Amino acid sequence: MVPAPIELRSDNAAGAAPELIAALAAANTGSALAYGGDAETARLQEVVREVFEHPEATAFPVASGTAANSLSLATLCPPWGSVLCHESAHILVNECGATSMFGGGAVMKGVGGAHARIDPVALQRVLDTTNWGDPHHSQPSVLSFTCPSDLGTVYRPDDIAALTTIARDRGLRTHLDGARFANAVVANECAPADLSWRAGIDMLSLGSIKNGGVSTDAIVSFDPAVNEALTYRLKRAGHVASKMRFQSAQLVAHLDAGLWLRLARTSNDTMAALAEGLRSMGLEFLAEPQANMVFVRVGADAVPRLAAEGLLFYDMPDGVVRFVTSFRTTEAEVAEALARVRRALGR
Amino acid sequence: MVPAPIELRSDNAAGAAPELIAALAAANTGSALAYGGDAETARLQEVVREVFEHPEATAFPVASGTAANSLSLATLCPPWGSVLCHESAHILVNECGATSMFGGGAVMKGVGGAHARIDPVALQRVLDTTNWGDPHHSQPSVLSFTCPSDLGTVYRPDDIAALTTIARDRGLRTHLDGARFANAVVANECAPADLSWRAGIDMLSLGSIKNGGVSTDAIVSFDPAVNEALTYRLKRAGHVASKMRFQSAQLVAHLDAGLWLRLARTSNDTMAALAEGLRSMGLEFLAEPQANMVFVRVGADAVPRLAAEGLLFYDMPDGVVRFVTSFRTTEAEVAEALARVRRALGR
Amino acid sequence: MVPAPIELRSDNAAGAAPELIAALAAANTGSALAYGGDAETARLQEVVREVFEHPEATAFPVASGTAANSLSLATLCPPWGSVLCHESAHILVNECGATSMFGGGAVMKGVGGAHARIDPVALQRVLDTTNWGDPHHSQPSVLSFTCPSDLGTVYRPDDIAALTTIARDRGLRTHLDGARFANAVVANECAPADLSWRAGIDMLSLGSIKNGGVSTDAIVSFDPAVNEALTYRLKRAGHVASKMRFQSAQLVAHLDAGLWLRLARTSNDTMAALAEGLRSMGLEFLAEPQANMVFVRVGADAVPRLAAEGLLFYDMPDGVVRFVTSFRTTEAEVAEALARVRRALGR
Amino acid sequence: MVPAPIELRSDNAAGAAPELIAALAAANTGSALAYGGDAETARLQEVVREVFEHPEATAFPVASGTAANSLSLATLCPPWGSVLCHESAHILVNECGATSMFGGGAVMKGVGGAHARIDPVALQRVLDTTNWGDPHHSQPSVLSFTCPSDLGTVYRPDDIAALTTIARDRGLRTHLDGARFANAVVANECAPADLSWRAGIDMLSLGSIKNGGVSTDAIVSFDPAVNEALTYRLKRAGHVASKMRFQSAQLVAHLDAGLWLRLARTSNDTMAALAEGLRSMGLEFLAEPQANMVFVRVGADAVPRLAAEGLLFYDMPDGVVRFVTSFRTTEAEVAEALARVRRALGR
Repeated sequence: MVPAPIELRSDNAAGAAPELIAALAAANTGSALAYGGDAETARLQEVVREVFEHPEATAFPVASGTAANSLSLATLCPPWGSVLCHESAHILVNECGATSMFGGGAVMKGVGGAHARIDPVALQRVLDTTNWGDPHHSQPSVLSFTCPSDLGTVYRPDDIAALTTIARDRGLRTHLDGARFANAVVANECAPADLSWRAGIDMLSLGSIKNGGVSTDAIVSFDPAVNEALTYRLKRAGHVASKMRFQSAQLVAHLDAGLWLRLARTSNDTMAALAEGLRSMGLEFLAEPQANMVFVRVGADAVPRLAAEGLLFYDMPDGVVRFVTSFRTTEAEVAEALARVRRALGR
Repeated sequence: MVPAPIELRSDNAAGAAPELIAALAAANTGSALAYGGDAETARLQEVVREVFEHPEATAFPVASGTAANSLSLATLCPPWGSVLCHESAHILVNECGATSMFGGGAVMKGVGGAHARIDPVALQRVLDTTNWGDPHHSQPSVLSFTCPSDLGTVYRPDDIAALTTIARDRGLRTHLDGARFANAVVANECAPADLSWRAGIDMLSLGSIKNGGVSTDAIVSFDPAVNEALTYRLKRAGHVASKMRFQSAQLVAHLDAGLWLRLARTSNDTMAALAEGLRSMGLEFLAEPQANMVFVRVGADAVPRLAAEGLLFYDMPDGVVRFVTSFRTTEAEVAEALARVRRALGR
Repeated sequence: MVPAPIELRSDNAAGAAPELIAALAAANTGSALAYGGDAETARLQEVVREVFEHPEATAFPVASGTAANSLSLATLCPPWGSVLCHESAHILVNECGATSMFGGGAVMKGVGGAHARIDPVALQRVLDTTNWGDPHHSQPSVLSFTCPSDLGTVYRPDDIAALTTIARDRGLRTHLDGARFANAVVANECAPADLSWRAGIDMLSLGSIKNGGVSTDAIVSFDPAVNEALTYRLKRAGHVASKMRFQSAQLVAHLDAGLWLRLARTSNDTMAALAEGLRSMGLEFLAEPQANMVFVRVGADAVPRLAAEGLLFYDMPDGVVRFVTSFRTTEAEVAEALARVRRALGR
Repeated sequence: MVPAPIELRSDNAAGAAPELIAALAAANTGSALAYGGDAETARLQEVVREVFEHPEATAFPVASGTAANSLSLATLCPPWGSVLCHESAHILVNECGATSMFGGGAVMKGVGGAHARIDPVALQRVLDTTNWGDPHHSQPSVLSFTCPSDLGTVYRPDDIAALTTIARDRGLRTHLDGARFANAVVANECAPADLSWRAGIDMLSLGSIKNGGVSTDAIVSFDPAVNEALTYRLKRAGHVASKMRFQSAQLVAHLDAGLWLRLARTSNDTMAALAEGLRSMGLEFLAEPQANMVFVRVGADAVPRLAAEGLLFYDMPDGVVRFVTSFRTTEAEVAEALARVRRALGR
């Protein structure tokens, strides 16, 4: 008999935080103008400006992280431009060319770097060897970060600032894919602004769904000059919710009063405990788990034994498994999961 | 002092049916696979097949009607094709070129017809005068209906069947923009199948949001052969919800046990009452209101007087106003609205 | 026995002017930098600036009129914009959605007007009824003229200036599809500048091929600010000739010393003679033939009799035929063609 | 005083073969239907079928290699697909995202391999680690070869066949970028069919311009099933020449009677002589020059000295220079170039 499952596949699998569902339900009062002309969306703008300490920050709710990334990038990048990102970036590997589609054939170019973080030297080399102004070559136009990365690592604000400085010197715009942005903020113990506009970021894909949200992520623009183009792009992509109040209400509930950071702290902390336990068994990680995700090399033989223990996880190539904790993961689950791993691996 | 407002702007403004919010909340139980691998989405497929009496119908939740329309049409139409639709169609007039974007430069071509319904003779003429096979000319590839139309009129199943027969004889695929599909079904007192696949429709944009939904509409495909392409197009457009269960649960609650039709009946019935009252004042309609929308010529002078009465409506060119009822509109509101119109117009 | 054919189908069918082939051959001297870094292309810029009396005019050779139009328009129009043009315009009817493809889903919107010329009142009405700034609606962004029109009529410089003034007041950019531009200049007895930038045109599709050219048309930009974007668009579309000297040499030979206007005068004059003869037979024209093209209503019965006389022409719907003269058409051919028409029609 | 220049920059710089200009001029006889309805284009199809020994091969003249590549690939690859190619491929590095634009956001993915040739093991690994059927990931759909490669190396027919077999086992279509295809055929001493359809290639970009052509390359399709889609794509891209006879006549003159191979033999032979001389000086090549191109490491200091000798070449990063020979390069020029290199480098 398989033991009761423990969910470690994805924070997407975790369901929603009750507070967000309550907020959504509370927004259902009377009539309200469609397409963002409602009170919740107005309130969202206030909250975003407070939370990000930026008087012109503007949030645009969208239905997914892919929408947030690809529409932000299409707004910043001309069709003949390229988006530089880490070679493991979600936008390059996991979004099926969405940015190239919305971007009219803009391309993505992977840059190397350890721990799934762009290496400044590698970035500088790409920029230095670019044939600037030569129409045979896609022109580097945007630098995009993934933070936390797809490997579970995190940039520090200074890392990002150093890289955006290099990029801006060459005229590039900047974007951060923050599908798990709250986890990165908590990991850095910094202000949201430190990891975004203060570090030189123009547009942020602000994830909510992976962190207890129901049905909406958001684009946060720190540059009002791009908002008009973005608005048209969102509408044409079908990402302007007609009953936007239900999207905005979730985001307000998330951001206001720090709920998003408390939820992310839970997932980061349970991951830290899980990682410590795994490490104590002598297991190798693909990278240091700095947020709520870890890739562990267990060997191909061990994978079915782990599964037989009722552990839910993603099976990656080469005998590696991915564990992800969520706002719902408990200390007890971590303890139980570690016990099962020990049993499965005989450690 | 302006009287308490009466909402007649849009069914989008009406908020959500409590049953749908309850269903959404109820879906928040435990973990579930992301991107549609959940029980609610599996259940949705069963419900859609029952409701539409079609064993292979498949529903794809999307965040908006624009997404449903443009992604359906991009799936059916090659980039060098044209989508034929009524010259007043929402896809042509109100979606900012979304179909041309997702369709790689496919174009839309308006066909005439009274009461915002495509005229079979006009359609036949377009097809007969097409330079088939000539690459200088976009090739008619899809016929798209808007039902109810943007003028509030409704096709009968026979009307649609006659038009799809003409279209299919020339190899065109078929799509129906059913942003208010339930209102059209109720108006026709027919089965959902009668107004879709039985009348020759390949893909349906099934609206939920305007009829009390929260955050999701759906594409319903009646042709399994298109589903793979559609799946990729949805993902790349950011319209595959990671926590799809919350979208599917709404749709299940809507469709199952007839809630969607009861809600639509309320909006249709209140519109009928409103229209009867307006007609009795001798007012002219742009078209017969067959669903939940009416366009009334009141004269430019009267518009501010109507507004001063607390009536919420859309102001159209040439002294026309649009009234829309919703699932929330009550008989009392209709009576009060009529009284205010009489007062404002002095009738 | 069918008499010897007389070519009246299209100026595209006429072959090339010997002077242009000679110029192309003469450009084959030694090596030259590719992609426009050659002496002929440098000379082309000088010639274009002289001929158009504009110190910053820049010519970009392209392989076809469709390329010239669609890449100009994609440069001027944002993806969420619309290009306003006459409802009979070549870009709308005959280019298979090229502008929507290159324009990322920009759409074209036909405006009415007699004689295939945009009516200022109709244009003004479109602009006045636009929902400016509303992302549900493609935003009018470019006004495009076809001159000569697809019906063989011509705008006067004042006509164009009046329309561009209306358009520019609303922030639109302007483009002229001059596939037969020389014929329009000759018809107006004006300077090339009068019919382009002096009348408010930003970008011109300058046809050469239909007027005796071999393999190249050109875009002429009067606004240096768009040239960078255009350069990238051209390259990505495969329209930057590697051996551009052979394209530029043709254009130089055409434009320099007035050859293009002499060739166009021949086609206009032979058309005038043809039209006079046809009119004297009491035949009806769809529009006044002001350049080198006429549409004549002969009746469906007469069409095969005309063909049996060896006349080469295009057969249009409703018993209409199209005759086009070219730089190669002679007075003798016109006289013979008229004799055959008389015989065929029994007039 | 700089010595008389010796052209070794690019075969694009070499001008046209006189035979092709003569053929173009000879095609200017009387009138001919536009857009490919002419005798020269009909003859081209016959010639292509003879030369490629394939009864259904079809040639489509286009204005550039970029057009040939990107429109072929857009025809073979769905928008959600990826084109696998060598990481140095021209389509990936030098065409500014043309394939992604025409392909609706299809992406290119570089595969490794020594000597700018795709390594079968690397290809197999990419295919084996693909998440097939997962809409999060662009689906490998086309394998594209560059032959000769951008490094001047050549695949043998067996190399290509082995790779296309791997690709076809996974359902991929195949394309070969043959901007210098004749040079590859000559290098292999094989039949054109051996290096194309017999080795499993579906579509070929057949270069003519770099090998003495004037203004046209061609797509050769070996799969009639793709021709209709290609025809529409070509038209919408502005690559259907109205006076196609002038393009087809060049290609006929090139292909018929072996001119293209004789011209390529000259450039290959002069390169072989040049390379032998350079090698005898002890210079290092980035790869074995198997066609008409060599990359030589001379050191950054030597570059200006080479230029001062009147040698025309491309200056690459890291002290590497590129020499390209053409159909016009003579043995005497090679001898003189070698003498100058010796002098400049003091060897």
